[in-house]
Amino acid sequence: MYIGLDIGGHKINSVLMKGNKIIRKRRTATKSTSNKKIIIAQIFDCVEHLIKDLDLPCFGLPRGKAGETGKSKIRGIGIGAPGPIDLKRGVVLCPPNVKALAGLPLADLVQKKFKTKVILDNDVNCFGIAEGILGAGKGKQNIIGLTLGTGVGGCLILRGKLFYGRDGSASEIGHMVIKKDGWKCSCGNKGCLETYVSARGIIRIAKEIGCRGAIPTEIMRLAKKDNKKALKVYQITGEYLGIGLANLVNILNPDIIIIGGGIANAGELLFNPARKVMRKNILSPLAKNTRIVRAKLGEDAGAIGAALLIKS
Amino acid sequence: MYIGLDIGGHKINSVLMKGNKIIRKRRTATKSTSNKKIIIAQIFDCVEHLIKDLDLPCFGLPRGKAGETGKSKIRGIGIGAPGPIDLKRGVVLCPPNVKALAGLPLADLVQKKFKTKVILDNDVNCFGIAEGILGAGKGKQNIIGLTLGTGVGGCLILRGKLFYGRDGSASEIGHMVIKKDGWKCSCGNKGCLETYVSARGIIRIAKEIGCRGAIPTEIMRLAKKDNKKALKVYQITGEYLGIGLANLVNILNPDIIIIGGGIANAGELLFNPARKVMRKNILSPLAKNTRIVRAKLGEDAGAIGAALLIKS
Repeated sequence: MYIGLDIGGHKINSVLMKGNKIIRKRRTATKSTSNKKIIIAQIFDCVEHLIKDLDLPCFGLPRGKAGETGKSKIRGIGIGAPGPIDLKRGVVLCPPNVKALAGLPLADLVQKKFKTKVILDNDVNCFGIAEGILGAGKGKQNIIGLTLGTGVGGCLILRGKLFYGRDGSASEIGHMVIKKDGWKCSCGNKGCLETYVSARGIIRIAKEIGCRGAIPTEIMRLAKKDNKKALKVYQITGEYLGIGLANLVNILNPDIIIIGGGIANAGELLFNPARKVMRKNILSPLAKNTRIVRAKLGEDAGAIGAALLIKS
Repeated sequence: MYIGLDIGGHKINSVLMKGNKIIRKRRTATKSTSNKKIIIAQIFDCVEHLIKDLDLPCFGLPRGKAGETGKSKIRGIGIGAPGPIDLKRGVVLCPPNVKALAGLPLADLVQKKFKTKVILDNDVNCFGIAEGILGAGKGKQNIIGLTLGTGVGGCLILRGKLFYGRDGSASEIGHMVIKKDGWKCSCGNKGCLETYVSARGIIRIAKEIGCRGAIPTEIMRLAKKDNKKALKVYQITGEYLGIGLANLVNILNPDIIIIGGGIANAGELLFNPARKVMRKNILSPLAKNTRIVRAKLGEDAGAIGAALLIKS
């Protein structure tokens, strides 16, 4: 059995899995994003909750041997947290949305408390591995995962394994420049994919063309009612997304690209123009049909993926 | 022992290797780029030349057993040819500079003639594997190779192995869009890296800013004499290259990027501005020091890499 935690600025999702099946899950609001003690206590509490009474037969699990407790059946705890992360030391570095985690040796703390293997990774990698093994990318070897939210997160699964690069800083896909000298990005540079294809990007494009929606959900609602300017916002964002996808396909020729995150809820409004531009910009005729799909596992993906870090 | 051939529009380079050592090599001008029979005969002739009299002790090789010929000591023949290539079938698809090879089942033809294993791959992958194993990338696991010539070729070595992607069409790095709505590229799209960072790109930039050099070697000569406009050409090209390099580092976080091809002969004229822009555009502090180096093996790299395809 494996435990997975997905720690975000709003919620902490946790799952207990046996093989590929979720046995228990729990979602709690993040009690504090700035107080270390509170968030650590909450993380411990989430784990305690999942492993409580695990020996009882009502969970369909084999009864523990004499002296064995629920805890001893757990092979490990995977944790997904906002990046960047020092993978080797198991330390969260400087997460902008959960400042309490900054510099925290989270893997060590959890390991000491529960005396089991702990693996810490960034939340987008957890999303990707869950979708890759159990979700939209099941059975595929080369997968690119993207999360479109406030920013753009990326994850690479190459030859069936998460790809980290030399320092664990691979898959910063959101900061690929697609328009030299374009709009300024939150990272300080110009023309990054994230500048156009994130909540921030959509809000800026809407403002630029005079669309009256002020936030993505509002613009999406307008677009679904055929409001021309709102449709135009998704057309423009979609074209930028298409360029980014084509670049990824030209460089990595993946089996599939899986897109999650709130912005992806716009669905075909966004994906239609993206696919058109992508197809045009992919060089190899063989790769033009690369599948672009929405994530399948919903909000649990991060926690499931965190648990799968232990399993794989 | 392994044989490697590098078939280009101007030259056919061939090497005979034992382990990682070149035992014999040969460079011949390509006799025809349009006549299939002539080029096939020349390819066969190159191989014959390398394996002639292999049993003679003067080459420092162990004398063959009774009945054994030079040919029987050859473990295989690797061939590098201009892409795109159907790797599974061993067929060159539509090389713009050596039209005679188009649709040719080259691997099969050579295999039937010499009764040995034959592997066909594209010439940039051969360049990359040679530089990765014996050249500038020796000992590194994650390597990106770039050749800057008429166009921009790319090659990925990830976790120590060439990375092909789903259809063998990965590493089309030259067609990564870095400037949406930028200059038109030979592929028909706009703003590809190749449009700015190739011989064609340099010529166009020179024209645009009124530099009197008409071809890259001339512009390079002027720049080395401190001609301001020629220096400006390399400054501009270098900045585009820097964006491309940063994108690759943000996506793949390699150990090293190795750059070859005629345009790379400009050396620091090109690499200095490129490194500056690259560093600024890389997100992870850990990855900012990614090494950008020139290729080491010179003109033999392609043939050496082709031979290494058999060895590895």
